Amino acid sequence: MPNHAYPTPEAAEAAFYSAFEARSLDAMMAVWANADSIACIHPLAAPLNGHAAVAAGWRSMFEAAGKFRVQVETVHEIREATQVIRIVREYLIIGQEAKPRPPILATNVYRKETDSWRMVLHHASPLQVGGTPPARTPPVVLH
Amino acid sequence: MPNHAYPTPEAAEAAFYSAFEARSLDAMMAVWANADSIACIHPLAAPLNGHAAVAAGWRSMFEAAGKFRVQVETVHEIREATQVIRIVREYLIIGQEAKPRPPILATNVYRKETDSWRMVLHHASPLQVGGTPPARTPPVVLH
Repeated sequence: MPNHAYPTPEAAEAAFYSAFEARSLDAMMAVWANADSIACIHPLAAPLNGHAAVAAGWRSMFEAAGKFRVQVETVHEIREATQVIRIVREYLIIGQEAKPRPPILATNVYRKETDSWRMVLHHASPLQVGGTPPARTPPVVLH
Repeated sequence: MPNHAYPTPEAAEAAFYSAFEARSLDAMMAVWANADSIACIHPLAAPLNGHAAVAAGWRSMFEAAGKFRVQVETVHEIREATQVIRIVREYLIIGQEAKPRPPILATNVYRKETDSWRMVLHHASPLQVGGTPPARTPPVVLH
């Protein structure tokens, strides 16, 4: 695994999406903390907990995925000295398609380690399902 | 707003789900940090950022909701000295229904303040849509 160091959460996040787009497992796992406490939730999927499960999830995703690009828009940030939470919208553009797919909302958590900021959590979820935006608050049924 | 103090993240989380079930806005907002940096993502909805927006979201949810119970199952935890991330499955039982609805997955982040642990982030998302569990990794389309 390459020994990358990221001086800021933003640098770690740029490396995360760049590894995602490149479908590079080594580059992806260099962004994550090497810990059993990390967790990754792909859209609509069960949580993957711990370094091995997170890596296995990305490996199978990269093996299945074709070429795509991803545009990322920052929505919100919660900044502490050693931990930063960033909420972003991800827009995937698949293959030669002209327009991005409906956005995915992601909560990304980064932790400051001795040498680098590293990702400890990625929780991604759809903002809409089936092509139409949902009613604003479907509370009783969905939450 | 009542001045509750929660000695542990678990106590804050119990108060959060108890306020949710009771549909009590005062009790709910007592659990959250009183800060503009907090964020709340209800299933399939756009993020609500800052104390006022988070409160407005719960208010409209509580006004719309009928009686329900919620069962919570801890899935994973990331523990730091002053910040704890808990991933849980939420099972809602609506009215007199015998069985819970399909689970919601939630990432809950708590921060240690001077007097209490308080919630700073709640990101909830469906684990399945339309009654059937999704394929394990629908990467290109959904992420």
